[in-house]
Order: sequence, then C-alpha cells, then structure tokens
Amino acid sequence: MSILYKMSERIFELEKQGVKVTRLNIGDPGLVTPEALTEACISAIKAGKTKYASAQGEKELLDEIASLQGCSAKNVVATPGSKWACFALLQTTLNKGDNIVCPTPYWATFSDMANQFGAAAKLLKAEFEERWQFDAEKLKELVDKKTKIIILNNPTNPTSVEYDDALVKAIVEYAQDKKVLVFMDEAYRDISFRHQNLTKYAEGLAITNSFSKGYAMSGWRAGYLAASEEIVKRIVKLNQITFTNVPVFIQAAALEGLKRRKEITAIAREECLKRLKAAEKALTGAEYVKPDAGFYMFLKCPDGEKVAEKCLEKGVGVTPGTAFGDHPDFLRVSLSHSPEVLAPALEKVKEAIGETK
Amino acid sequence: MSILYKMSERIFELEKQGVKVTRLNIGDPGLVTPEALTEACISAIKAGKTKYASAQGEKELLDEIASLQGCSAKNVVATPGSKWACFALLQTTLNKGDNIVCPTPYWATFSDMANQFGAAAKLLKAEFEERWQFDAEKLKELVDKKTKIIILNNPTNPTSVEYDDALVKAIVEYAQDKKVLVFMDEAYRDISFRHQNLTKYAEGLAITNSFSKGYAMSGWRAGYLAASEEIVKRIVKLNQITFTNVPVFIQAAALEGLKRRKEITAIAREECLKRLKAAEKALTGAEYVKPDAGFYMFLKCPDGEKVAEKCLEKGVGVTPGTAFGDHPDFLRVSLSHSPEVLAPALEKVKEAIGETK
Repeated sequence: MSILYKMSERIFELEKQGVKVTRLNIGDPGLVTPEALTEACISAIKAGKTKYASAQGEKELLDEIASLQGCSAKNVVATPGSKWACFALLQTTLNKGDNIVCPTPYWATFSDMANQFGAAAKLLKAEFEERWQFDAEKLKELVDKKTKIIILNNPTNPTSVEYDDALVKAIVEYAQDKKVLVFMDEAYRDISFRHQNLTKYAEGLAITNSFSKGYAMSGWRAGYLAASEEIVKRIVKLNQITFTNVPVFIQAAALEGLKRRKEITAIAREECLKRLKAAEKALTGAEYVKPDAGFYMFLKCPDGEKVAEKCLEKGVGVTPGTAFGDHPDFLRVSLSHSPEVLAPALEKVKEAIGETK
Repeated sequence: MSILYKMSERIFELEKQGVKVTRLNIGDPGLVTPEALTEACISAIKAGKTKYASAQGEKELLDEIASLQGCSAKNVVATPGSKWACFALLQTTLNKGDNIVCPTPYWATFSDMANQFGAAAKLLKAEFEERWQFDAEKLKELVDKKTKIIILNNPTNPTSVEYDDALVKAIVEYAQDKKVLVFMDEAYRDISFRHQNLTKYAEGLAITNSFSKGYAMSGWRAGYLAASEEIVKRIVKLNQITFTNVPVFIQAAALEGLKRRKEITAIAREECLKRLKAAEKALTGAEYVKPDAGFYMFLKCPDGEKVAEKCLEKGVGVTPGTAFGDHPDFLRVSLSHSPEVLAPALEKVKEAIGETK
C-alpha cells in the first residue's frame, strides 16, 4: 500500500481510538455539495431512477460531457470517479512487462495501478527550483517500445502547479508521433486559478475529469473519461463485469453540475483561493512554489517523513513528499478545512518544520 | 462480450431507435426501492454524508453485516454490488493459468471475469432431468492444482433452483480439505421461497450478498463480501485504487434495509411469488423446473437462440440458454414486470416456442 493510503489508514485508526486529528492529509476539498446538485439527486431518487442502467452512462450526461470535451457521446464513458477512469484505462491497455511514463511529484496511485497489472512506472523527477516543470527531452528519453501511456496530471497533485502550455504541447506532439497514448488527468482543472478550459479531445488522448473537487462531490464517486471509441468500448465492457453503472441518481447530480458549471465551480475555486490566502499567511517563511490551482501546498522541509510524524504527534495529519515520488524533503498539506480550522493547524505544521531544522 | 450483455446492448439500441421492447432479459426484479430506504439515503445526503470515506465501509454497516453473517466486522467489506465482490476476489486471487470451477447453468460473468485475468473456467453441466442438481463427484474431478476457487451461486441464476443441502455440504467439506476457496454467491437468498437463512461465514468460504434483489436496490450498486481478514485486506486495497468507497449515503440505505431485513425482503419475496404464479398460469404447458426463489424461469425449448430472436421480433427480450453455459435448448425469462405486463409478454414467448417446435 502506498504511503498516501497508509497514512490515511493510520489516522482512521487513531480516530477510532478517540484521538482528535485535523486531517490535512486527504484529497478532499472539504466543501459542502451545492444544494442544486443534492436536490437533483433527491428528485431522481424520488422519480424511481434506481434501476440498473447503461454501463456507459445516461445519454443526457454523455451528451453534455461530449459538448464540453469537443467530441461525440461515443467517446465518453461515465465512471465512479476519475480514479476508476484511470484504473480501467490501465487495466484494459497494459500487459505484463509494459510501462507508463510520468513526471513526479505525482499521485503515486498511478504506479500502484500499473503494478497491479505487472507493468512498471518510469518516473522523471522534476525539481522545485524549476517550479516543478519537468524536462520534456528527458521525459521523451524514458519512452521505449514497452511504453503504452504517458500520464500528465495537470494541474498536478501534490504541487498544485500547472505545466507550461509549451511543455504539454511538446509531449502531446511527441506521443502522437510515437503512437503512445497521453492520459490527461484534469481532476483539478475546474479549480485552477489561471483558467478552467478543459483540454479538447483529440486522437491519441484520453482525458479524465472528476466531479469530486470542482463540484464538491468527492464521496459521490462520479467522473468520466473522454477517449477513442475503441477505448470507451473496452471500458464499458469492464464496467459491465465490475460495478455495472454509476447510479443514475448520482449521474443526475453530476449533470446538474455540468449545466451550472460556471457558477458551481466558481464556488469551489473562490473557497480554495480564500484558504490559500489564509494558509500563505499562516505559513509565512515556508518555502513552496505558489499554487496555480486547488487546495494542496507542497512545502519544502528538511525531512518530510520526520516532519509528518511530528505533525501527527501535534494532532495534524499531513503527507510526506515520499508518497509522491522521490521527494523526501517535502510535505503535502491539504487545505481541506475552513480558514479558521486551517490557521492553528498550519501553525503546528510550521512548528514541526522548525523543530526538524 | 457474453451473450447476456450483447442481448442487453441490442435491446438498448432498439429502444433508442424507438422500438418498444418488454425487457424480460434483465436481472432486475423491477421493484420500487422501499421508501424507508430512500428516506435513509436522502437524510444522509442532507446531513452532508457526501465525503470520501473508508474503502472497507462504514462501521455501523460492517457491524450489522457481521452480526448477520456470524463473523467479525474485520471479515466484511462493502462493495458496489455483489458483482464487484466477485470481481475483486478473482482479481486478487487468480493468476494466469489458474482456474475456477463452477456448475452450470450459471451466470457466465464468472467466466468473463476469470478470463480477464488469464484464468480458465472449468464448467460442470447439470441436467434439467436432475432438477439442475449437479453431480458432486464429477465437480470434485474438475478440481486440479490450478483450481483456486469453486463458485456456488445458490439459489442459482438462471434456473432459480436451490442446490440440495447435502450437495453444498459435500462440496464445502471437500474444498476445505483441499484448501480451495468456496465462493458462495447468495444474491438471491433473501428472495428464496424456501428459507432465507444466509450461510454463516467459516474459514475457507467467501460469501457475497447483494442489496439489488431482496432490497430492490439494483441501480444503487450495493453489496458486500464476508471472507477471511486477509482477503478483506486485499480487496480494501483494490477498492482504494479503483472506486474508493461506496457512497456513504448509499450505505445508509443499505443499513436501513438490514435493520428491517425481515419486513423489507418479505415485500420482494411476495411480489416474486405473485409474479411466478401469474407466469406459471401464462406458461401452462411449458417445461421448467419449478423455481425455489427469485424471478427467473429457465424454460425448455427446441432452440433457445432461435426462440430468443423470434421473441425479439414480437417485442419481448429474453436470454437464450447459451448465455448460461452449454444449454442451447433453454431460455431464461425474467419476471421483471407486474403480472399485468408479464401475462401478454409471456403469451408471446409461448407463441415463439410453439412456432419453433
């Protein structure tokens, strides 16, 4: 199990024992799902939308996603979170001995998934000093005959940084030329402070997005993949023998969200910005690349694992940088609480960093 | 894709083209989810139970299931349907070259899943003349060094027949002796007309149940697995990298169902019995083993695939016996509608059989 989930499980255990922990270790924005979305769900339940349904998704939702991603509904499949979109893509693409290529810091679950299928993850370390922008040429060098997928999570968990447009373009063009699929994980795009334009679907791309972050629907498990018809068909087939369908009443909430995308995602974005401001104030003196999006801060510190232990002793859950690749001198804090809760918790994080220096 | 899903997709396609089809081909009892359950879900949504949660399941639900299955909560994992319980068990147990052993007629998805992992399904054909009871000695002969799991779906889809107690006992004892896991799929147990006693958890067993049928929660995707702690841990790990958690508000509905198990499952059971009576009347003269449970009838007929085509021409969807193993001279009809809708549709099925004779 990756350090990310180990830390999460440890904290669940501590809480069961009655220990109070401020969880800044989770990928949940901690926002309340907007009422328009919960109401759409409740209406669907009351209308009896509780039966088995298409493993691809409801027509209305697929159409709405297709128009947003610039593709046909045949290129879209609804998934229980963007996590499933990635898992299903990897399960139906990778064979033993294949590999995926990904810059780090990264969401290590990509590797956990690849390993599940006997595939390797070839990682390229980006540097803090380069604002976490990786070297395109070095990434290309990692690609070999066994490379099936290049993964770009943009904006990135855990750094909250966006890759430069030219960098993304260079990789996509290279991959299209080499016939290697690029998996674009845009789960944090809706809560980017710079722009919220989703990458349009094109051949050679598989794009996932999630309702968890921008629509405050984390526990609902709703997301989608936009990809080639052939990939979509493979995933629909996998859906049929695994979870069958995303509950239709959950798809109803997601659809309502998309219809009000501008208004709904603005709520999450503004809340993230408010928290970031509070956090920057509380963390004055700490070193980090200023986030372009979302609710993570990736702090530089002497020994991330040690600091994470100290934080836990002080009642604050954080995740060491080693959970996101070979980044021992970093720490991810999630701004998953209101500024009022965040400020004292981040004080303790600062203390822990200070004590380790 | 198995014939089961192919038929289902074909009918979805016909419906999109405006053709009206009475779908007697689906595994959905077609009942309305009881209001106490939908209300429990809606209350949970309104209480904000919409966040990421444990990949094993909520404590209260796990405790309730544990008490029902006679095990510890550590032996239980909540899943998006019993289908996921089976898929996850197979994914985390089978290696390439392994096999599973299963009597037929059976739910062919078991084979689809095993094949996904490069494993084979070794099938033992049971006979209509033996009331679909398989030969225990012949099943044992199929078990070899590569056999990891014996699957018993009891009561059985598509026959709705229960295996004799002595038969089940013989297989379980043999498997425990040989250290082969027995996977008991009891998705139809709550709607058995004979008894609703769930198999108690014991070493060497992995037992799944579903909220889809007995609790009329098909589209909700809720079920569970009771198994060894080691298996549960493996599946929780898989859940973490796939769908994360069953939405807590869906678990709330399932919990409410378990608390009112007797009352809630009686509603589904009585409705199934009422439909069976109506169907037996409509199908006078047809040959079948009288169902012990549920809402399927497995009818003897000259050429199941041909009859299924004829039925579809008449606007009724049914599934040929070949979808459930080597049973070409059979047909599965789901009693997924009220007696009023069922009667004329079954008349057409009878016609189609008559025309093929």
